[in-house]
Amino acid sequence: MTDPFTTMLDLERGLVEPERKLTERTLADMDGMYLDPVPSSRAGEVVYTVSEIPVPVSGSNLLSSTTVIQPGRVGDEFHMTKGHYHAIRDRAEIYVTLAGEGRLVMGTEDGRHQVEPMRRGTVNYVAGGWAHRSVNAGDDPLVFYAVYVADAGYDYATIEEEGFPVLVVAGDDGPRVVPNPRRQR
Amino acid sequence: MTDPFTTMLDLERGLVEPERKLTERTLADMDGMYLDPVPSSRAGEVVYTVSEIPVPVSGSNLLSSTTVIQPGRVGDEFHMTKGHYHAIRDRAEIYVTLAGEGRLVMGTEDGRHQVEPMRRGTVNYVAGGWAHRSVNAGDDPLVFYAVYVADAGYDYATIEEEGFPVLVVAGDDGPRVVPNPRRQR
Repeated sequence: MTDPFTTMLDLERGLVEPERKLTERTLADMDGMYLDPVPSSRAGEVVYTVSEIPVPVSGSNLLSSTTVIQPGRVGDEFHMTKGHYHAIRDRAEIYVTLAGEGRLVMGTEDGRHQVEPMRRGTVNYVAGGWAHRSVNAGDDPLVFYAVYVADAGYDYATIEEEGFPVLVVAGDDGPRVVPNPRRQR
Repeated sequence: MTDPFTTMLDLERGLVEPERKLTERTLADMDGMYLDPVPSSRAGEVVYTVSEIPVPVSGSNLLSSTTVIQPGRVGDEFHMTKGHYHAIRDRAEIYVTLAGEGRLVMGTEDGRHQVEPMRRGTVNYVAGGWAHRSVNAGDDPLVFYAVYVADAGYDYATIEEEGFPVLVVAGDDGPRVVPNPRRQR
């Protein structure tokens, strides 16, 4: 059994100390997820990083992490995470946004979708069964703190094959949510 | 299945909107939990309130709440929560402190104890199996955001009978952690 411990979270920048780096994704890692191809000159650009509070990944433990998505676009699409379902579908997740402006894009396997706002102080409840992707729709880093159960797991493949039902793109009057023309179902 | 939704958390004051009030405890509710009796003149004084983000309380959902403990003492002991074990013992909990200065007092059924600091930005990991009580050791409200799994449940009776292994009391040089003379085991 794990013993209790304390870490520090910067409630504006989201850095966690002590932390362990979980993920760093460049535009090369994201190629094929945007409608437009990633220009080879931008392949090494870091889109987002995820740092985790170091808890054993076992059954009933609660994992929590901070994600920082850098501002930017590929074509009209804003920088975003890959997005995933939980491997155990009914596991929920909570996002607390600390900085920036974003959209949380969610979809179900039976074709529903929902888009929620992300800004400092929003608490997004990602119910079980919903694939989730966060999108930086602003000019500054989007920073959020996420909590989920250790056994939830990640299923990236299903939503990558389906595609999310909608995209978030830059419009003349700000971010717009539009249907994804490559959605497979 | 619940659909996703968004609420607001004040990252300094901890109020959640929309919220549902979960608990309000007065000193009368806490009588017998302090070494000293609660003066009858203070019986109606509110010690702490808990407000919850309104998620269905079912299996894999994540519940989250904000707790505000008012500053104050009964005798030398600081204002505190009752404290509890989770009914399902191995369920963990995460506390993110937003304001104030406190101590998180934890104990196990086999007699161990641990005390962790609480101040803006601390993330306390309450591992499964640990009874937990938060104590406001400062002069301002102690505000924290807690996340836990819906099926965890509450067992107040066991730790109330045992008593926590240690107390947090005011000393000449600040808060002190001392053995609980009424600890039953």
